[in-house]
Amino acid sequence: MFETVEVGHVLEKQEYKRLVPDLRADLLEMQRRLGRSSISAVILLGGVEGAGRSETVNVLHKWMDARGLETHAMWGPSDEEQRHPPMWRYWRRLPPAGKIGVFFDSWYTPYLDLGRSNRMTSAEIEAGLARVKAFEQTLAAEGVVVLKFWLHLSRKAQRQRIEGLAADPDTAWRVTERERKCVKRYAAFCRVAKHVVRVTDSPEAPWHLVEAVDERYRHYTVARTVLDAISARLEAPSSPPPAAAPAQPLAPVVEPNLLSHLDLTKHLPKARYKHELHEYQHRLGLLTRRLRQSDRSLVVVLEGADASGKGGAIRRMTRAMDARDYRVVSIAAPTDEERAHPWLWRFWRGIPPRGSVTVYDRSWYGRVLVERVEGFATNDDWMRAYGEINDFEEQLTEAGIVLVKCWLQIGPDEQLRRFRERETVKHKQYKITEEDWRNREKSNAYTAAAVDMIERTSTEYAPWTLVEAEDKKYARLKVLRTVVERLSDAEL
Amino acid sequence: MFETVEVGHVLEKQEYKRLVPDLRADLLEMQRRLGRSSISAVILLGGVEGAGRSETVNVLHKWMDARGLETHAMWGPSDEEQRHPPMWRYWRRLPPAGKIGVFFDSWYTPYLDLGRSNRMTSAEIEAGLARVKAFEQTLAAEGVVVLKFWLHLSRKAQRQRIEGLAADPDTAWRVTERERKCVKRYAAFCRVAKHVVRVTDSPEAPWHLVEAVDERYRHYTVARTVLDAISARLEAPSSPPPAAAPAQPLAPVVEPNLLSHLDLTKHLPKARYKHELHEYQHRLGLLTRRLRQSDRSLVVVLEGADASGKGGAIRRMTRAMDARDYRVVSIAAPTDEERAHPWLWRFWRGIPPRGSVTVYDRSWYGRVLVERVEGFATNDDWMRAYGEINDFEEQLTEAGIVLVKCWLQIGPDEQLRRFRERETVKHKQYKITEEDWRNREKSNAYTAAAVDMIERTSTEYAPWTLVEAEDKKYARLKVLRTVVERLSDAEL
Repeated sequence: MFETVEVGHVLEKQEYKRLVPDLRADLLEMQRRLGRSSISAVILLGGVEGAGRSETVNVLHKWMDARGLETHAMWGPSDEEQRHPPMWRYWRRLPPAGKIGVFFDSWYTPYLDLGRSNRMTSAEIEAGLARVKAFEQTLAAEGVVVLKFWLHLSRKAQRQRIEGLAADPDTAWRVTERERKCVKRYAAFCRVAKHVVRVTDSPEAPWHLVEAVDERYRHYTVARTVLDAISARLEAPSSPPPAAAPAQPLAPVVEPNLLSHLDLTKHLPKARYKHELHEYQHRLGLLTRRLRQSDRSLVVVLEGADASGKGGAIRRMTRAMDARDYRVVSIAAPTDEERAHPWLWRFWRGIPPRGSVTVYDRSWYGRVLVERVEGFATNDDWMRAYGEINDFEEQLTEAGIVLVKCWLQIGPDEQLRRFRERETVKHKQYKITEEDWRNREKSNAYTAAAVDMIERTSTEYAPWTLVEAEDKKYARLKVLRTVVERLSDAEL
Repeated sequence: MFETVEVGHVLEKQEYKRLVPDLRADLLEMQRRLGRSSISAVILLGGVEGAGRSETVNVLHKWMDARGLETHAMWGPSDEEQRHPPMWRYWRRLPPAGKIGVFFDSWYTPYLDLGRSNRMTSAEIEAGLARVKAFEQTLAAEGVVVLKFWLHLSRKAQRQRIEGLAADPDTAWRVTERERKCVKRYAAFCRVAKHVVRVTDSPEAPWHLVEAVDERYRHYTVARTVLDAISARLEAPSSPPPAAAPAQPLAPVVEPNLLSHLDLTKHLPKARYKHELHEYQHRLGLLTRRLRQSDRSLVVVLEGADASGKGGAIRRMTRAMDARDYRVVSIAAPTDEERAHPWLWRFWRGIPPRGSVTVYDRSWYGRVLVERVEGFATNDDWMRAYGEINDFEEQLTEAGIVLVKCWLQIGPDEQLRRFRERETVKHKQYKITEEDWRNREKSNAYTAAAVDMIERTSTEYAPWTLVEAEDKKYARLKVLRTVVERLSDAEL
């Protein structure tokens, strides 16, 4: 594969001088149009040591408008980053719409660092690379132009380059033990790199192999590719690229289904409720305190129709915890900064650092519930979201987050009763709005969306718990007990 | 002072039970109104050890809607926080409009920790407390209700409380060496605390002393005070409180002034420009590389009229630097998240961590330039901003940031020439808009604002450099040279 970029590509000085002025003008014009679009771009540079990636990035900065371009030098993760799942540090740095972010190996680092990749099994490597690919596909589908460059040098060219740097007093400082080691391990590195590049090459995020010996050729080729790829996307009729194949319609949800199946008459007598509430709150208090010491964290997601009792269930949990340890996040419409990023960005942004608890009153599942039913997301978007959510949750749990998801189910009659009650009880009036009545009319569509969601996102690492919620006491206790049991199972 | 809260305040159980339900309903109602307002609230709890601050915060969480309330447990600063000025960690946690943030000692920590305050001179302590006071006044003026509670126990009550905790097997874990030490150092701590409380008490951010012995009294008093203070602000005719005294009008700017005084005919011959540009870019490259190792950072601020050449000057600097070390930030209208916070929040948010460079194409000075001239900020707001900016910049420089501020000055004729040029040269057309022509008509107002700004924000730690910018070569080199000289003086 890399042989195709060992053919001696060169751009003569005269030709370069002729081409560059137009290219620069076009790059600036492209950036200006990008700035007013809902598109962003991620440029990722990989390659063999000594291929001159930093020089090329510096040239991009020179040719382009630095105000719309940000290069992320990612040295070791900070301690805040270490307290989050590995991909968090990349998500937080994704450029907003209109801008370009430049990354070096970044999410490929674990697979391109021989020291680290040698310690992984090949199954781990494949699973990791599949995740990388899925991540890039999500970005592409969300309007991010993903540009990946692999800057290649032949073994001989690499050695010459490193020796050249070492010989020049101006650049000798750049050649350390690490660079010399790379020369020695050239063959092993290329073998690994070839595999990584091949496996993660995709139509949405292709690798561009660039022969890196001649710096004029390298600079020009990278910049030209950036220009062409982003311009093409800007000129496409609709901003995001069409999916390879349109989403298939889901089979309609029919009764009986897993929600209609629930026994909503389940209830709990007051005395037993009081007793068990006290017991489980006590246990939750102890467990969350232990969480802080164990460097794990807890995420609780509550979903359910309006008036299904999410707020009440949340309060029964939070009362047992120390206010310094938890945060309750209520998901509403995204802010404009959130809208300028891929949809999962706002959820990545908010996940708790190790040692703490976040309780979500509605969550990322809005994508496949309200956004689906109300048509805020296209078919392709919300269909794609099932996989994105499963992958997201897998990453959370792998990072030591205990993830508990509860669906609170009530029937239409009970919902109506609670709406009416809210209208008449003074301090509950604010909870009922026009919108609630409107949503109620779509309750069949919401039920279908919920059934699909539960089926497609109940995973072994993050199963859904269905909660019969017509009796509030029963529901509150089931949520509380589920959280306590999952925390106990986690062996903090 | 603390004697007033050693009088034995008690709230009987019966009375408490009678009062609390209404209080809770009112708190929820207040939060609902707060959520729709442009106001936020900061609750800060200080007090003697054992006064039960966490319990009271937990009660607040129990009584209020946790979705609008966030408690910040601030353990030691993270390494990202350590790479920024000390106040950065508090700024980043300020609640947005509609929400309430709960903090413990937080920005008072250095002054209330005997170990740390004993190592400071009394001048350092006074300067620090004055800054704390200014910070809180800024918050208040920006629509944040600042509520500070001091929870007090007499020496005897403290000893009883700590002994009580130690005796109960459920709470014994909370009594460590630290708590026992606090009992021993009660008198010294109270002496220091009295001073801190007295000096930082202000009409905008008063301390509320609360006798903490009786927990019902403590919970009720804190919650009631929160309710009353926020409700009062919500009911005030205009959201932010009126300043103690309205801002005085500034004297009109007359000629000659420090801008009209500049010799705009200054220029640089091409050959010398090329030679010096090369020399200073080389030095800038070396210096910014050293920056990374020295754990210092560089902030360059460029201000000046439209078409004064800021972009060109920035490019001459960035070309000399490694793209991984710098970021160019172009300041435009704030996002909605930024608008939901005090105005300086967006700038605190963006300051570079140690080791890196940020170049601002326009900056926080927009507050006293465009926002003043266009009337986006009230008189009181922009007058207040001079002091806020000076304090902000002092904090940056104290944290090891080299701060360089350049004003690029061109005359109206040259500006007109450049505008016309932009209209005719194809790849410059995008730079000129209707708005530029409109701003031009207000050029006298902009000049007056600039003169005031330069006078009031030229400090010994962050002086303005005035750049005669009619000759682009001269201007670019003066900016570049200024940055290089300031970095050299910083002895990295």
